[in-house]
Amino acid sequence: MFTIKHSEGSSRARLGELTTAHGTVATPAFVAVATRASVKGLAPADLEEIGVQIVIANTYHLHLRPGEGTIAALGGLHRFSGWERPTMTDSGGFQVFSLGAGKVHGVGKVASIFPGEDTPANPSNYKQGRSLVELTEEGAHFRSIIDGSERFFSPEGVIEIERKLGADIALVLDECTSPLHDYRYTKAAMERTHRWAERSLSAFKGLQGDPGLPNPDQRLFGIVQGGAYEDLRVESARVIGEMGFDGLAIGGSLGRSKADMHRVLDWTIPLLPEGKPRHLLGIGEIEDIFAAVRRGIDTFDCAAPTRIARNGTVFVKGERRHRINLRNAKFRTDPRPIDETCDCFTCRNHSRAYLRHLARAGELSFYRLATIHNLRFLTQLMAEIRAAIAADSLDQLEAAWSRGRGPRL
Amino acid sequence: MFTIKHSEGSSRARLGELTTAHGTVATPAFVAVATRASVKGLAPADLEEIGVQIVIANTYHLHLRPGEGTIAALGGLHRFSGWERPTMTDSGGFQVFSLGAGKVHGVGKVASIFPGEDTPANPSNYKQGRSLVELTEEGAHFRSIIDGSERFFSPEGVIEIERKLGADIALVLDECTSPLHDYRYTKAAMERTHRWAERSLSAFKGLQGDPGLPNPDQRLFGIVQGGAYEDLRVESARVIGEMGFDGLAIGGSLGRSKADMHRVLDWTIPLLPEGKPRHLLGIGEIEDIFAAVRRGIDTFDCAAPTRIARNGTVFVKGERRHRINLRNAKFRTDPRPIDETCDCFTCRNHSRAYLRHLARAGELSFYRLATIHNLRFLTQLMAEIRAAIAADSLDQLEAAWSRGRGPRL
Repeated sequence: MFTIKHSEGSSRARLGELTTAHGTVATPAFVAVATRASVKGLAPADLEEIGVQIVIANTYHLHLRPGEGTIAALGGLHRFSGWERPTMTDSGGFQVFSLGAGKVHGVGKVASIFPGEDTPANPSNYKQGRSLVELTEEGAHFRSIIDGSERFFSPEGVIEIERKLGADIALVLDECTSPLHDYRYTKAAMERTHRWAERSLSAFKGLQGDPGLPNPDQRLFGIVQGGAYEDLRVESARVIGEMGFDGLAIGGSLGRSKADMHRVLDWTIPLLPEGKPRHLLGIGEIEDIFAAVRRGIDTFDCAAPTRIARNGTVFVKGERRHRINLRNAKFRTDPRPIDETCDCFTCRNHSRAYLRHLARAGELSFYRLATIHNLRFLTQLMAEIRAAIAADSLDQLEAAWSRGRGPRL
Repeated sequence: MFTIKHSEGSSRARLGELTTAHGTVATPAFVAVATRASVKGLAPADLEEIGVQIVIANTYHLHLRPGEGTIAALGGLHRFSGWERPTMTDSGGFQVFSLGAGKVHGVGKVASIFPGEDTPANPSNYKQGRSLVELTEEGAHFRSIIDGSERFFSPEGVIEIERKLGADIALVLDECTSPLHDYRYTKAAMERTHRWAERSLSAFKGLQGDPGLPNPDQRLFGIVQGGAYEDLRVESARVIGEMGFDGLAIGGSLGRSKADMHRVLDWTIPLLPEGKPRHLLGIGEIEDIFAAVRRGIDTFDCAAPTRIARNGTVFVKGERRHRINLRNAKFRTDPRPIDETCDCFTCRNHSRAYLRHLARAGELSFYRLATIHNLRFLTQLMAEIRAAIAADSLDQLEAAWSRGRGPRL
């Protein structure tokens, strides 16, 4: 399912093709987040025009509403949503973490890289509080955020749900540990995640060929855990890497700084099977994209680019951190598009002044227009990155993106 | 600016062409509501695909935010919003009413035709309460809903704002009376509205030819008031009709029932100059459309079709009142489009089941998809109505729309 077309000379970056039952993804690629089977504010036709290649929906959210049975009855995620191109489903492990340890520790995936920016969709999840989750060897007991009802996720149960959803790529249920968990807890959780991975794989194989499932060509990715501890990440990369998954994801805590995140990738990736696709979960800041790609990541997803768009923050190359906030008063009568070099629908049709007005008035159309721009910006950046890998010039591209008013990368 | 192409045999309905500096509107036409220079959830490109011919923005809302100066600096409403086709601006008279008498009386435009459906965008405006408006001969003093600051609208000031906004058709400032106002108050208010109309017309002429204004071809419509009192409506239609406006609108209270509304139209319209376009303010239920068109209305605007869409109610011909609510459990696995005969973007791409999921999950994409359908449904209905007028068969069309499970019209 994965072909490496070229490996870059000066890094671990590679140019690849990820083939699925619903089309091929040119990698490295950004995976747009469609938590509840919709990229917030957009229709599938918008994604096609933007050039999005693949989206990731969420098993936890879709299980709670509308339920995998409903989606299966409509022919699976692709036919249900009208997006007939490649899809993934995240397992719900991260949501279980958010309601459990993430809540108790008051943290997200990274303890504090960008205070105030690693904001979850529902910030209240991240206030310190009591865990709403009980983890056992069997699985995770938790309460529905919709109606408070008691729910249970086992590795096998999640596979069954994901089989019914029918994404092209499913991710196994894992336990995400917090950056504030100690070595001992992180190790025990990782070992349980490994046992869950085995169980997931058996359950997945057990359903192979079931004619009632919407996507017979579904593939399964394992998830490497181990927090920010070198020996645990090494062990997890080896164990999960050898299990026979179709691809590997790197999940869980990435430490407390950018440097920690880079170390986790440096420890892990060289140990993963070279020929299999590698996904990095929940990372997508522009500077992180270069860091991940040069370390050998093929795909990654992140809700931040679409979430910040809805808050008025849009990407503009060369601005500080390559972004501006359209709500700023200085754009009140600015007739220019968000980015004069961008070819997206929003930049072709609307001025910063109009977009600022829509943002401040809380007009619904704003969310779509800003999201279109940020996703187009990323698909363009990824195309530049793929071209640079093909030309063995990733260093130069990264330098160009960090020059001028840009951030230090 | 207005040409009557054909008058229907059995009614006062007429087929017309309303010509503006930004294109021609085939009438009778529905005017989509773009209060703050955006039809909620849609981009101008959506309106074009739907076949919307003309939109109406709101002077009151745009004056408060972003301000007419900002819009003028960007070249006027058309260039500001990216909608380069015909536009109108309502004067703000209705908003002044909502914050004043409407609030004191706890009513909308019609006292109680459809309880719970004549809901304003902000229902709290319609709870009984203290007036936030003071009306004098000079104009209306009120407070900004955004920051509480004191504001003043005079007839001349509103014309100046509308000239800066630069819509193709501006409406004069009027005083809307409540269905619960007595004869004496309604008469005094009407007489003041007539004096305001004269002042508006002079102010409008005074700005004619000003090279700094974005739309030199702007036209001005007067507004007939008089509540549900026959002699007042007759007087107002005569007085406003003779003042030399480019078109006439019927505004204010339309009484307490459908029958009252029909009577107001029957008293008023025959007295208006035959060759000028007639706009009905704030009415757009499907059954009302037939009633208005057959009495000689050329254009009408209403926020209800787009507002109910956002709440999950979409038009389906033949259903009770030609509508269904997508949130209903019976659509959980319904693979059909909203309406199998509809050619809109939403019906071409998405099932009721998926739309129900989006509605229940509160996904932003839902608002756009449902709005597209309801507006397309109305543009299609208006095309059918125009064809029926051309064929002198409006009775048959109206009968066809009231058969089966439809409402009694």
